Amino acid sequence: MIAQSSKSSLIHTSPIALDPSKVRALIALRKFGAMSRTDLADRMGYSRSTITTISQDLIDLGIVEEIGDAVSNGGRRPRVLNFRANYGYIVGIDLGATSLDLVFADFNGIILERASTILDVRQGAALTLNIIRDLIIDMLNNQNLPPTCLVAIGLGVPGPVDFHAGLLIAPPIMPGWDAYPIRAFFRESFPNAVVTVDNDVNVMALGELRAGAGIEHENFIFVKVGTGIGCGIVCRGEIYRGADGCAGDIGHICADKNGPVCHCGNVGCLEAIAAGPPIARRAIEAVHAGRSPILSKYYQMTDSRLTSVEVSRAAAEGDAIANEIIRDSGRAIGEVLAGLVNFFNPTMILIGGGVSGIGHLFLSSIRGGILQRSLPLSTRNLRIDTTSMKQDAGVIGALMLALEHVFMVKT
Amino acid sequence: MIAQSSKSSLIHTSPIALDPSKVRALIALRKFGAMSRTDLADRMGYSRSTITTISQDLIDLGIVEEIGDAVSNGGRRPRVLNFRANYGYIVGIDLGATSLDLVFADFNGIILERASTILDVRQGAALTLNIIRDLIIDMLNNQNLPPTCLVAIGLGVPGPVDFHAGLLIAPPIMPGWDAYPIRAFFRESFPNAVVTVDNDVNVMALGELRAGAGIEHENFIFVKVGTGIGCGIVCRGEIYRGADGCAGDIGHICADKNGPVCHCGNVGCLEAIAAGPPIARRAIEAVHAGRSPILSKYYQMTDSRLTSVEVSRAAAEGDAIANEIIRDSGRAIGEVLAGLVNFFNPTMILIGGGVSGIGHLFLSSIRGGILQRSLPLSTRNLRIDTTSMKQDAGVIGALMLALEHVFMVKT
Repeated sequence: MIAQSSKSSLIHTSPIALDPSKVRALIALRKFGAMSRTDLADRMGYSRSTITTISQDLIDLGIVEEIGDAVSNGGRRPRVLNFRANYGYIVGIDLGATSLDLVFADFNGIILERASTILDVRQGAALTLNIIRDLIIDMLNNQNLPPTCLVAIGLGVPGPVDFHAGLLIAPPIMPGWDAYPIRAFFRESFPNAVVTVDNDVNVMALGELRAGAGIEHENFIFVKVGTGIGCGIVCRGEIYRGADGCAGDIGHICADKNGPVCHCGNVGCLEAIAAGPPIARRAIEAVHAGRSPILSKYYQMTDSRLTSVEVSRAAAEGDAIANEIIRDSGRAIGEVLAGLVNFFNPTMILIGGGVSGIGHLFLSSIRGGILQRSLPLSTRNLRIDTTSMKQDAGVIGALMLALEHVFMVKT
Repeated sequence: MIAQSSKSSLIHTSPIALDPSKVRALIALRKFGAMSRTDLADRMGYSRSTITTISQDLIDLGIVEEIGDAVSNGGRRPRVLNFRANYGYIVGIDLGATSLDLVFADFNGIILERASTILDVRQGAALTLNIIRDLIIDMLNNQNLPPTCLVAIGLGVPGPVDFHAGLLIAPPIMPGWDAYPIRAFFRESFPNAVVTVDNDVNVMALGELRAGAGIEHENFIFVKVGTGIGCGIVCRGEIYRGADGCAGDIGHICADKNGPVCHCGNVGCLEAIAAGPPIARRAIEAVHAGRSPILSKYYQMTDSRLTSVEVSRAAAEGDAIANEIIRDSGRAIGEVLAGLVNFFNPTMILIGGGVSGIGHLFLSSIRGGILQRSLPLSTRNLRIDTTSMKQDAGVIGALMLALEHVFMVKT
């Protein structure tokens, strides 16, 4: 082993920024794994000589290394380019309203440790971030690594984010987080870490794009159905955030002009009709109207606190009302998505979030709504499915976010 | 003058394909005009040395030339890169259902001649394309240029297009054009011309992007309101066509679940409520109901053939019913666009097409519909306006289409 392979040999003094062609090369290696210079040149549409220059620079910087032998076409056996696993270490964090998932990985994206905990983001930023920092320090200690070895942190949060500034902007369910300096907080403990913050749905879409069903898709939508409804958009193989960073905010698209009033003040918003809370509300109404013995049973069991979980159980037990609620919710989502399919013409729609597992009827109703109202040409090759990564889309996406921005973000 | 400057000196033997970095450099020169190597490197995020190599290759190929002096920063006065005007000649064509606009330009995009004519695309592909070919040959003769000098043709058509194949696909208003080999037709007369065909709305969006209000916008939507309703999408500074080339087909998004039945079979499609034909239909209904003396006057004047033009005139004369029709149409379009603003978060929406000039009330109703139903953050920086290029967006867009694909399309 050469000296550079020892865990403590690389002392990063500050994050480094690379020019766009090198970043593109790294993203290609990240997406498709180790490959030869020729394959990399083909993937990127660059000349062989340009790739030779780029890869030599990356080797000199200690970011990539040559390993093994690629399949030869008869000539000299080419060697493949790969990330140097111990160039630095990375943390990905999926922060939910009431939970936290965290993974600790090497620079190749290999997960070395993971942790999950229950917390309440409404406790505020300082308290929550302290918990995260302590978890990271524990993991660094377990791996016998100094804090300076951490080169990137990716964080997905359940609120609107100014991506370039790394700040939450007036998050409705995260009091005390508005414009909190998350980057500065982490840089105090981890001076070499580039900190990237993004909305949870974008992060989930990125997880699917790099490590899930999205690997072979250039243009797709990841829809999260939970307390609210939002989507992450992948356009030409990249997360699309829009002009003000709020692209994908589909929860307030009108699903029914005669629908209920939404908390935003408008009438008939999709999330006022089809998200977790209206599903629970309709179930409670059915209980009060004496229309569902099964839902009434759960109503008593949960001390009058029905959620989509109990609606799902009641549906599985054959409750007609529960199935009707699920079908209506899926249908409303499908009808709104149909419009987005006509507009965006993606190759795939993935459904995730807490409500997405409510039952098979949910997905089939979404499909029905999309197929009825979309143009035949735009659904010819359209895959509509639930997330391929279950709860992991967020935390793996956060890891990918960190890995991709370690050389891009100016901090 | 050196020999290369004479009009007939360049005899192209076949279209040439360039690698992506050179094409990107040419697109940047096309978009921002002549500039120094340093400015070009900055625009593209490439190193100075990469740009030096790229520009030398382009000069060697005779595509660009060095001209004039850029503003110096004190050192040697840098020279700027520019297209060689007589590298080749270009035609842009905007084909409508009943009209044709054509421009003939040098390689710098300077228009040397233009022509417009009335025709009927329902006469079929061969007849229409013959007219276009004869117009081009006349123009070449006028300029004393051989047919081999034509290096690119860009064509916008009012129907769905398989962009990569350059074919119309089952166009509803263009019988006889389905899969007609347009490229092969033109290559018979103009053997060196790269022929690029696209949907008219995409072409209009490209016109605005390169030569209109879109120059400073990365993400915007161009909406055409005419017999149908569709939109061209610009995403990250490029036309976005979607997975099957049908992105932007917003005419069949549901605008009102209780609305009229559309020719597509669904209920309440936007174009069944707000396009030219329903505007005319509502006007005729008002005449039959005796609700509008002014519309009745135009009904008699036009021999019972009211269109959006007469509705526009009646509105200008203060007719309440005509104004109501226009307001309802604009409102319905605005409400659908509100959903797309929430999803796509663009910086601009431009409204064009035959109905777009129907009156100020139309644009203000569209604005009202968008602003009421979009999220505040996504409309903070949103410009909503009518096309900046009037009828020219299509034909200038077709010219830009030709200019941008001359080195990209494999034919």
